[in-house]
This record gives sequence, C-alpha cells and structure tokens, in this order.
Amino acid sequence: MTADIVPVAESDITQWDHEADVVIAGYGVAGAAAAVEAARSGADVLVVERTGSWGGAASMAGGFIYLGGGTSLQTACGFTDSVDNMAAFLNVAMGPGADAKRIDDYCAGSVAHFDWLVGCGVPFKAEFFGEPGWEPMGDQGLMYSGGENSFPFNTIATPAPRGHVPRMSNKKQGESSAGFMLMKPLVDTATASGARALYDVRAQRLVVASDGRVVGLVARRYADDIAIRARRGVVLTTGSFAYNEAMVAQYAPRIAGRPAASIEQHDGRAIRMAQALGADLAHMDATEVAIFADPQQLVRGILVNGRGQRYVAEDTYPGRIGQLTLYHQDNTAYLIIDGDAQDEAMASMSPQLMMRPPTWVADTVEDLESEIGLAPGALQATVAAYNDGAARGEDPLLHKKARWLRPIGSPVGAIDLRESTGGFTLGGLATTLDAEVLHVSGDPIPGLFAAGRSAAGVAAWGYASGISLGDGSFYGRRAGRSAARG
Amino acid sequence: MTADIVPVAESDITQWDHEADVVIAGYGVAGAAAAVEAARSGADVLVVERTGSWGGAASMAGGFIYLGGGTSLQTACGFTDSVDNMAAFLNVAMGPGADAKRIDDYCAGSVAHFDWLVGCGVPFKAEFFGEPGWEPMGDQGLMYSGGENSFPFNTIATPAPRGHVPRMSNKKQGESSAGFMLMKPLVDTATASGARALYDVRAQRLVVASDGRVVGLVARRYADDIAIRARRGVVLTTGSFAYNEAMVAQYAPRIAGRPAASIEQHDGRAIRMAQALGADLAHMDATEVAIFADPQQLVRGILVNGRGQRYVAEDTYPGRIGQLTLYHQDNTAYLIIDGDAQDEAMASMSPQLMMRPPTWVADTVEDLESEIGLAPGALQATVAAYNDGAARGEDPLLHKKARWLRPIGSPVGAIDLRESTGGFTLGGLATTLDAEVLHVSGDPIPGLFAAGRSAAGVAAWGYASGISLGDGSFYGRRAGRSAARG
Repeated sequence: MTADIVPVAESDITQWDHEADVVIAGYGVAGAAAAVEAARSGADVLVVERTGSWGGAASMAGGFIYLGGGTSLQTACGFTDSVDNMAAFLNVAMGPGADAKRIDDYCAGSVAHFDWLVGCGVPFKAEFFGEPGWEPMGDQGLMYSGGENSFPFNTIATPAPRGHVPRMSNKKQGESSAGFMLMKPLVDTATASGARALYDVRAQRLVVASDGRVVGLVARRYADDIAIRARRGVVLTTGSFAYNEAMVAQYAPRIAGRPAASIEQHDGRAIRMAQALGADLAHMDATEVAIFADPQQLVRGILVNGRGQRYVAEDTYPGRIGQLTLYHQDNTAYLIIDGDAQDEAMASMSPQLMMRPPTWVADTVEDLESEIGLAPGALQATVAAYNDGAARGEDPLLHKKARWLRPIGSPVGAIDLRESTGGFTLGGLATTLDAEVLHVSGDPIPGLFAAGRSAAGVAAWGYASGISLGDGSFYGRRAGRSAARG
Repeated sequence: MTADIVPVAESDITQWDHEADVVIAGYGVAGAAAAVEAARSGADVLVVERTGSWGGAASMAGGFIYLGGGTSLQTACGFTDSVDNMAAFLNVAMGPGADAKRIDDYCAGSVAHFDWLVGCGVPFKAEFFGEPGWEPMGDQGLMYSGGENSFPFNTIATPAPRGHVPRMSNKKQGESSAGFMLMKPLVDTATASGARALYDVRAQRLVVASDGRVVGLVARRYADDIAIRARRGVVLTTGSFAYNEAMVAQYAPRIAGRPAASIEQHDGRAIRMAQALGADLAHMDATEVAIFADPQQLVRGILVNGRGQRYVAEDTYPGRIGQLTLYHQDNTAYLIIDGDAQDEAMASMSPQLMMRPPTWVADTVEDLESEIGLAPGALQATVAAYNDGAARGEDPLLHKKARWLRPIGSPVGAIDLRESTGGFTLGGLATTLDAEVLHVSGDPIPGLFAAGRSAAGVAAWGYASGISLGDGSFYGRRAGRSAARG
C-alpha cells in the first residue's frame, strides 16, 4: 500500500485520457450489471478492468445466484416461496448483524431480478438437484445452497431452494463454468447496450472536485498513469479484500492465510480508495468459509470438534459447517465415518475432488479416540449417544435428517479436518440501497457508488452460496442506474 | 451522526478561541498519561473533556493495569516473570490477529511503565490475591487477570499474575474505586506539570491545514462552537464506540445491545473524526466480554452450552468465559452446580453482587436436563464423564485445576446464563507504536495521535483485565511525547 492512494484534486488533472458519463472499475458480475443498467439508462459507459478480460471472480465461480420469493424457476421446479419467507430465512441465516432493510429490499426485488437475468440471456434449466454437494452434479438449475432444509433453518422458515445456477453447455467436458455462463450474457448485453471496456487498466486513485464530488479516476495502464473523467459517477466493483494480507490481518484475522473462492486481484484497493475519502465500512470481520470435504461424506458421518463433541447438523449447508468450524471450533474438526458409509460416499456420483480417505481407521471407537488424541471417553460418549438416537431414527441433539441417520459401526475411521477451511471476505464499503457510498458522516459521497464484494451486502456474518453473485448483480444494477442519474 | 464531522479547513477558521502546543481530547487514563508526558516534554498542554470532570471510564473501573515482565510488585509478591514469558502469553491470549510487534513493544516497556505509574504517585500494596473473583476482595495489589494459571495458557507460558491494582484508601466503605486511585495521581501529576484542562468541551471536527496536517479541533461547548489550535499535535483519547449503536451494528454486531464496563460518552466520535480524514482502523469486531456470574460459583460447577456440552475450563479468566460463551456458544450457557457447591460459593467472601441462585433444581441430572430442555441424555453424559474424572482428581477434557474437581451430587441445580454477557469494543484507529494515527495509505496523518480505546491496542480478539488501562496509559504516554515533538 502506498501513499498514492490519496485522492487527486480535479485541479491537478492537466489532461483527461478517457471520458464517459459513468466509469465502472472492475468487470466482474457487479460491474457487468452496472454497465448494462447505466447504458440502458442512456449513459455513455466505460468499464475499466485490471486484467486482460472481463470475468472477475464470478466467471471462476460455481455460478449460484441466491434468489427466491417465487421465481419462475422455483415454480417450474415445484417449490413455493414468498418474499416474507425468504426474508425470514435470510434475517437469521445472514446474521448476526444482518441488515434487515437490505434483506427486505433484496427479497422484494428478487423475482424481478431473476427475470432480468433471463432477459439478459442467462440460461437456466428448470430442474432441481436434491443430493448433497457443493454444486449440482449436472446442469440442473436449482439447488439448496444455504441449509434452508436443515436444522435450525427448517424450523424458522418454510424450506425452499434458492441457489439458481446458469446452465452450462458442456459441463462434463469442463468447457465452461456456470459462472462463465452468467458473465458472458451480461457482458454481451452490456456491449450491445453500448458500454465500452478498457482492459489492463488498474484503478488507483479517485479524482475529487473542490466541492467533494468524485469526478474521475486515476488509473495505471502498463507503465503509465492515465486520468479518466466520469461526468456523472464512478462505480467501484473490484471485489473483496481477501488477498490483501494487511487488511485481512487488521479486519478479518481468522481467515488470514486461507483465501478461497476468490481471485488474487481482490486486493481491497477500491475499499482503500474510498476510505481515503472518509467512506464508511461495515461487517469487515465477516467471511464466507468453505470446509474442504465432500458433502456426500459429511452427511454420512458425524463431525466432532477437538473435545470430541458434535456441533452442527452434518447435512446442512457445508459453508455453514465451514463457518462454525473456523469461528466456533478453533478450525478443528474430525469427521467420524464407518467403513460402509465411506464406501457409500465414494460410490456416490459426487466429483471426487473433495473426497478424502480416512486419516485414521480402527476397530473400535475407543481405539480411534486414542489414535486421534481426544480426551479418553469423549468420542465414545458422543458416538454412543448418536448411535442410540440413530437406531430410533432420531437425532435429538442436532436434528440431522432421518435419511442420513445410521448407527456408526466397525471399522470406524476419522478424517482429519483441522485447518481445512478457506474463504473470502464479505465486508466492505457501507452503501445505501441505491449503492451510493456512505461517508462516515452518514451522507453519501457525491458521485461515488459501489457494489459487489467491495461493498458490504446482504450477508453480515452468515452466508449462503449465491449471495455474492446475487447481491453483486442486484446492487450492481442499482449502482449503474444511480450513477447514470448522476 | 451528522455531516458536521467533516474536517474543517484551517483557512475557514476566523478566530482561535484557545491555543496550546498539544491539544488532547478526552481526560481518561490515556488522556491523562498523554498530558503528563507532553507537559514533561516541555509542551504547553490543553486537555478538553466533554463531561464536567476528568476520569472517563478509567475512574469507574476495577483499576487493573496489565503489566509484567518482572515488575517490582510481582517480585515483591514472590512471582517471577520475564518479557519473553509475558509476550508468549499475550501472543496467544490476545489473538487471533494479535499484533506481535505491539505486544513485544508493550512487554519490553512494561516494568518501566509500572515504575512510571508509581513515580506519578499511583499506590500499590505488595500483596497477592489468589481466590477466584473478578477483582481482589480487599486492597491487594496483584491478581491473575487473564487466565495465565489455567488451561490452556498454563501450558503455553509460565503462569505469572499481571493484574496490578491501585490501592484503595477505604474499599469496604466504597469511598473510592481502584480506577479512581489510578486517575487521581495521574491528573494531579499532569496538573503539577502544567497541563491545563477545559471541561464540558466536546471535540467535534478536526481542523486541517492545506498540506494535510491536523492543526486543531472544532469543539462544542454548551451551545457554542469553539476553535482550538494545536501548534504541534492533536491527541484523540475519547474512548471506545461501545455506545454508538450504528457503529456497533456495522462493526461488532454480536455485542449489540449489551455494552458493559463502559460509559455512555464512548460514542466513537474520535474514530469517526479521524476516519473522515482517511484514517485506517483495526480489529473493529473485537470486544471484551464479561459473563455476569460470580467466579466463586463458576469454579465449583460445570459450564455447559445449549447442547449440554462443556466448552471451557471453569476456573479460567471469567472474561474469557464470557468471550467464548458469546462468540462460540451463541450466548447460551448453563452452570450446573450441586447444593453443596452452591452453599460453599455463597459462604465464600466474594461480594454477593454477581452471586445467582439456581434457576432450576432437581434430584437427578436426568430431571434437570429435562427441566432445562436439553436433548435427552446430553447433560447426563457430560456429568457422568466429569464425575468419572473428578473422582480421580482429573479433568481430561478441559483441565480444570484439581482444587475445584469434585463429583456433582444431588440435589443439582442449573443457573441460566443465557444472554448473560456484556462488554466493550476493542477496535479503533490504526496507529504506529508512537501513537501516530495511520492513514489508509500506510503513512501517518501529520499532527494526529490516538491512544486508549479510540485506538486498536494490544488486544485483538482476546482480552485480559487491565489491558485497556495498561495500553491506554502506555500508548497515551507515547502519544503525549510524539505530539510534543510535533
């Protein structure tokens, strides 16, 4: 981080190298959505992207977009949902600290946002995928992606799947990712609407007029500094700070050293540029967390912490398991799974990428407990209690679904899941629902907008797959419209 | 929060109402320490305080100052400590995210800082207090205040008590707090050194010269705005943001609605004033957390979470119990304690303020478990395992000290400790070890200094009693010296 992040006075700019009504920094999902809407609002739009191509983290992603309230895809797959039901889930699942007003806003606009994506040409197949997994195994378009149908969320709201996944043309051949199938139509739509793009251009500093209004960017293109004038507004959509080690150490130390589902360009620069103007932040400690294990294994075993105790229903959203493991269990977990269950998991259709062999195997739980190094008796008591309930088809402690309950037999193994998590940061610039960046005074900074993971969004501390592409595209659109208004 | 937090240009100040070399906002422990050192450095010092008197949160506090490395008080009480041993403890206990460089710095200067406090007239009685409690019962000067002698810290560093407590003149009559006995000598020393003070003056905005240097404050005194010129520097020592609901919701939502050991003046204003200049922050989600229970009860029972599982050695620092309960156990805990243990706790010399009667009492653990509403068998298994070890004088799961191990008998009670935590925020302005406030560019903001809970200090996520008065006074001194240098 260098001092050249300090804003530049407009009076110090001798020549504008580029100019547009709306200048968008970062061509991921939020930037593409902003470009479409700004261009459709009649603005002349220029997107600057630091890499050689559009895409960002979105085009590398599994492509979930978290939407509900009764989208046409949910209905076509036979699920009922409502705005209130979706909000009831999100208010609990995205907390503590979830912003109820933003959640209401997002849920109320969710059906229309799905239709907008379809209108931009994003393809979805009306088929539900109901097996455990991080992603659908085929090109199915809908999946549970936040633990809606597992405890405790199934007691809070009526379960409805909300992970909407763009259809890949040739998934088995690995020719595309679902995220690519989201990004390509959006970028094509933006281009068709008149948005221009400049690549290999890295936003460095904001340009500010004497009245405090943001009127442009100074950016780096190869070895040169270039000045880009924004007649109506600048939109920051350059992603999270997951790859900025100093920021992670200051704001989200528990995810330090384990960025995942993120890209190296996510260096927090846009957050810093806006902070230098007095922009406010929110939820900077919050992170998404994946646990590096296959859900087909997780559901068939029991997860215990360093004290040999269960702590989460193993059939919930695996990202929730990751969060609870990293934050509440000192990043220490062991999956206890017997031989039959392991065989079953391996025989499932799940991609083998995250399948893991047992680290330890023993004939008895007592021996296994000793090999892992757990306190004597701890795991034995846990397994005895689990088996007792499982024999009756019940899990009184954590309410795993009956489908996955079976007493743990012999031989019994344990998969070492210590330090097996990773994720990306969720905190960022505080914004209004119109994507205006807020100054610490509580007022918007004129001419400055943000969306995507540069901004704090729907997720506070909790998460569901698809929230980032969801609120990134949703508030990216808002940012584009707001900036076009100037 | 209003827009009047935006910095004022020096050119807009028509008249300075007050003037000094060093202007300090906030007359708590950090402000007093800064005033002493700035004045001793030869600077003309003015402290502005928004209430009618000096004191701040410090003078309401239990008065612990966390110091070690072999202070004369530790030695007089028969304890051995070293700088490295203290640092080894703090690096684990203050994390994750603890700043090792700051910890090294603080530990290296700790013995001299104690001598400095004594030199300012702060009284300490060379007597150790070794019973469970939040504070010494009498006027003893030294106590364990961070769990140094309990698991897991007793396996990481050689236990040494580091909670240094000023001696109260008349504790039993409640005539003074230990915090008052810390503050009064410091303020007297500052006054004798020439520092002036103005009360009922609330710092509102920073005044900035055209080159970016902070050159003063605009403050509110009754109905008037006054301008205060700082020829060499402004020091911000106005405390935490625990009472700013919006900031807590954005940065530390889990402590929302439960501020404790804090004062209403802790509204985060100084943090906001500096953020408006582009100041950086650190550890904004971190909080101290107290659990509202008496340690004399805690050590004699077992603490279980909402799943009936133990999760912490009950004889550790109760603030650690509070943190683990709030953050890792969904703020849900039950203290299981039998009749004899409860009688013993009630008969202890502990002040009765935090003693609580059992919420439920039963003849058997099975009945108790059912009354609390825990999963069938969960508490029974936990108590059986605990009793099994206790009968042998062992606690293989959590290593509570043998002194407190005794099988739980009948009748058995449970104290409901759900939602029984509170605390204050630990995050704040990012500063150098010389207490210069850091801009997000990584460079110090010229003329601006901060210490105390307006700044991120030694504690990141963990805590020990005395860390805030400790680093507040330690880096308050640094701030005073740095500001006096200009």
